[in-house]
Amino acid sequence: MSLVETTTNDAPLVLGTHTLRSRLIVGTGKYDTLELMQQSLEASGSECVTVAVRREKLYDPTGRNLLDYIDFHRYTLLPNTAGCYNARDAVRTAKLGREILLGLENPGADWVKLEVLADTKTLLPDPVETVQACEQLVGLGFQVLCYTTDDPVIAKRLKEVGATAVMPAGSPIGSGQGILNPNNIRICLEYLKGEDPDYPVIVDAGVGTASDVAFAMELGVDGVLLNTAIAHAKEPVRMAHAMRHATEAGRLAFQSGRIPRRLYASASSPEDGVIDRTSN
Amino acid sequence: MSLVETTTNDAPLVLGTHTLRSRLIVGTGKYDTLELMQQSLEASGSECVTVAVRREKLYDPTGRNLLDYIDFHRYTLLPNTAGCYNARDAVRTAKLGREILLGLENPGADWVKLEVLADTKTLLPDPVETVQACEQLVGLGFQVLCYTTDDPVIAKRLKEVGATAVMPAGSPIGSGQGILNPNNIRICLEYLKGEDPDYPVIVDAGVGTASDVAFAMELGVDGVLLNTAIAHAKEPVRMAHAMRHATEAGRLAFQSGRIPRRLYASASSPEDGVIDRTSN
Amino acid sequence: MSLVETTTNDAPLVLGTHTLRSRLIVGTGKYDTLELMQQSLEASGSECVTVAVRREKLYDPTGRNLLDYIDFHRYTLLPNTAGCYNARDAVRTAKLGREILLGLENPGADWVKLEVLADTKTLLPDPVETVQACEQLVGLGFQVLCYTTDDPVIAKRLKEVGATAVMPAGSPIGSGQGILNPNNIRICLEYLKGEDPDYPVIVDAGVGTASDVAFAMELGVDGVLLNTAIAHAKEPVRMAHAMRHATEAGRLAFQSGRIPRRLYASASSPEDGVIDRTSN
Amino acid sequence: MSLVETTTNDAPLVLGTHTLRSRLIVGTGKYDTLELMQQSLEASGSECVTVAVRREKLYDPTGRNLLDYIDFHRYTLLPNTAGCYNARDAVRTAKLGREILLGLENPGADWVKLEVLADTKTLLPDPVETVQACEQLVGLGFQVLCYTTDDPVIAKRLKEVGATAVMPAGSPIGSGQGILNPNNIRICLEYLKGEDPDYPVIVDAGVGTASDVAFAMELGVDGVLLNTAIAHAKEPVRMAHAMRHATEAGRLAFQSGRIPRRLYASASSPEDGVIDRTSN
Repeated sequence: MSLVETTTNDAPLVLGTHTLRSRLIVGTGKYDTLELMQQSLEASGSECVTVAVRREKLYDPTGRNLLDYIDFHRYTLLPNTAGCYNARDAVRTAKLGREILLGLENPGADWVKLEVLADTKTLLPDPVETVQACEQLVGLGFQVLCYTTDDPVIAKRLKEVGATAVMPAGSPIGSGQGILNPNNIRICLEYLKGEDPDYPVIVDAGVGTASDVAFAMELGVDGVLLNTAIAHAKEPVRMAHAMRHATEAGRLAFQSGRIPRRLYASASSPEDGVIDRTSN
Repeated sequence: MSLVETTTNDAPLVLGTHTLRSRLIVGTGKYDTLELMQQSLEASGSECVTVAVRREKLYDPTGRNLLDYIDFHRYTLLPNTAGCYNARDAVRTAKLGREILLGLENPGADWVKLEVLADTKTLLPDPVETVQACEQLVGLGFQVLCYTTDDPVIAKRLKEVGATAVMPAGSPIGSGQGILNPNNIRICLEYLKGEDPDYPVIVDAGVGTASDVAFAMELGVDGVLLNTAIAHAKEPVRMAHAMRHATEAGRLAFQSGRIPRRLYASASSPEDGVIDRTSN
Repeated sequence: MSLVETTTNDAPLVLGTHTLRSRLIVGTGKYDTLELMQQSLEASGSECVTVAVRREKLYDPTGRNLLDYIDFHRYTLLPNTAGCYNARDAVRTAKLGREILLGLENPGADWVKLEVLADTKTLLPDPVETVQACEQLVGLGFQVLCYTTDDPVIAKRLKEVGATAVMPAGSPIGSGQGILNPNNIRICLEYLKGEDPDYPVIVDAGVGTASDVAFAMELGVDGVLLNTAIAHAKEPVRMAHAMRHATEAGRLAFQSGRIPRRLYASASSPEDGVIDRTSN
Repeated sequence: MSLVETTTNDAPLVLGTHTLRSRLIVGTGKYDTLELMQQSLEASGSECVTVAVRREKLYDPTGRNLLDYIDFHRYTLLPNTAGCYNARDAVRTAKLGREILLGLENPGADWVKLEVLADTKTLLPDPVETVQACEQLVGLGFQVLCYTTDDPVIAKRLKEVGATAVMPAGSPIGSGQGILNPNNIRICLEYLKGEDPDYPVIVDAGVGTASDVAFAMELGVDGVLLNTAIAHAKEPVRMAHAMRHATEAGRLAFQSGRIPRRLYASASSPEDGVIDRTSN
């Protein structure tokens, strides 16, 4: 039916050699149970999930392996370097992820979500180490999806050293503050997509609720990556549904060309023939 | 399937004797063509559309009647008093709407969206005339859905005089500014729903884009009514889709219990066993 | 000296028959001690202080009369109707204030700050009772400075019934939220000063800190009235100094014509002769 | 008099070996005339002015030297590296400034405002080049006041390599957007002053009007540096006055301990003995 097509005829999100129909990428950490994670992933509508691949992170307290709870036919795995605080560790962790996924014959072996943090307290990204790690991983043949701050200059440098996608933070990881500086995201978009409109920019981190996701997409980013906002909501599965709708809503609204903001505007019905002018 | 149920098992929106599954109510004015209106209404997923019922507003330039383009089996009509600037005209227009809808044997004959504006320039509601008109219409047996400012005290008074639902503005009609004062909406909710949680509160007017709708719903209102944001978007049908998703997203996010906002928080993966602490 | 003149050659604030050099009006309630109040009033630089005149409010726990701690030569008294929840009580309290001030042969006997609140919990103004009380007090010969919400339509009505000045709230009394809806204050200014630029508009209530005051003044209001932000600060006297500077800062900035906001702009020094273009 | 003392007994701003009573530092570029610059500097109350020292920038179109219009007894000169786009040029320009100021026997020869920009379009700072240049200049014996983004991790690194003060941008140079991301400024303060409360942090760039300056100071920064907001205001001298007051206002408000923000709070006068409860 024609109207449904309007929704579904959006171009897919192309990230290097990977193609995704959903523009929402979700994490797999922080859930109370692996079952809750499974249901939330499904509800999110995501086709790509990111996994912290260090061995000690793959097992839950009862010894179950996270990877056994992810349907590889349904989701593309995106290994990440969570827990790394310098370029060397991040590169090593990326290699570990590749090794594990090659062992699983999983197509996620060729890419990585790079995340190099500055400290365990704020979890802010370390821009200098991130640039170094990105450059090294690109040299090692990885397709690098690169988490970073919202600093447009660092974002540009990451693209220059070969990042497949740049993923600026909306606000600190897990802070739930949404997009604190839309101005910076807009300059990131101008820098990264100005002469290369298909270059992918994804907001990663900081999202707290559905309107944050919609707002991010309305700025013109290509996707949103989040974890805590779903995993730590009181009802994660329901919030996953919310995020799926919010991603779609924000994407469509961006494409639709919104009305301008004004102090006040014209009425919800035309003023022609106003009753107290024409008929009193 | 269980996950789809999560979405659809929400209680319907009950407005007096009317029950709606969609929490988005849309206007029918300002579209370039009646066909575009038709498609946009369908894409919005709404089950209730509001119509300015004065005869001179029901016909387009070529003499076609708006009502012939609305599927009465699909949509509940909500007649409105757009274009009225005092209580007397609003009451007269409401009666006219009832008459027309009774002639059509349409169930929308028993309710009205009351809108009494202060002037043609800002289109702000006139609180004093609105309270008077509301009281009179309730006395005449109408179920009154009452458009008003975000002033909680006026909102409370409207409920006291018998409004079926109170509909505070997010910002001026057609301004596209979204929810300018969430604090006032929150106090409206406390006043109106504090001891009567099922009393319906709907944000009406000012919405510009999808994230505004999601944000409104996240505040805890029961629904959103909008017109310009869809009708005047560059692609109205697509924006109607966006608004449908945004309403769903905001509703689900409200119900899900979002994470708190913090300066910074814990990592997207647990910090236990951090690689550079344990293995270097 | 010429530069000092730039500061001091501002027109005074004219409120009916009263002329004030300082555009900051402060309350006298909520201080821990009368001495702290005295010092804070002095530090604020205000020439006008508002006093709740009901007899039970004029005495502190040890039986001292507030009025004995206010220097009548320094400050114009502005009696207020704090604690009134309907028009009748407000009018009675205004008359009481006039009586007391006439007894003191104080020039503040001819005006009143009208404040009619909706309830003791939110302390929001009741617009309908406020309009009624204002009209009655004007009829009784009072110069009425009228506290109200930020609703422009009510503000306009208050001017129409004869208010000497309209004083919209920035946010609820004592909330410390500053100016929640600058859009409404801007429309208030357009309504009230559009064809009558000298008509005084004063932001009253909600201010939390100095930047709130500066921001209010930058919108183009004629003055700010506040109490809690000083009286309940940890160091009231110091905060009173801050508010004095903030009022001056905001007033001067409004008059100065600020630079526009842009995504980014030109450098802090001209780009002509950039070193890496000209000399490398 | 005691109250005046409250204002003036603030500790001075100590930046390395320099001590300033005013916490506002202003630029000298972009003025229409040198005379307007002179008057604006005086009105700002600043004791420190920053100057782009490259020779081609020191002369106006009629061949007059900027330095001849600055009273060296009144103002400490702070040479800056405006117009530099990499570390090498910035270091060379800093040396040039030192040379010129040594020639003038000016005490500003021992410090520099380091500014390394990424491109001529956005004028955003280049974090990587800035860190390199800072380290080199510290090695050359400069006291470096370092302009940077609001990224806390880069800010921390600049302190670690020896910056005398870190100066995060509120928003892009000349953008007039104020403090776009207070969250980042707060984390900068925590990082830089957490265990070293006297370490100076100054907001540099982006300020548009007085309330922006007050707001910055209320966050707890030690000072504000600005240029465009004064030089390009319609009335620069008046805006300079505004900025002087705003700096003072924000500083005092920060020290005073503001009231908390609440949805609503208690009345401007105590509720005890409310007239309509006790006497009706």
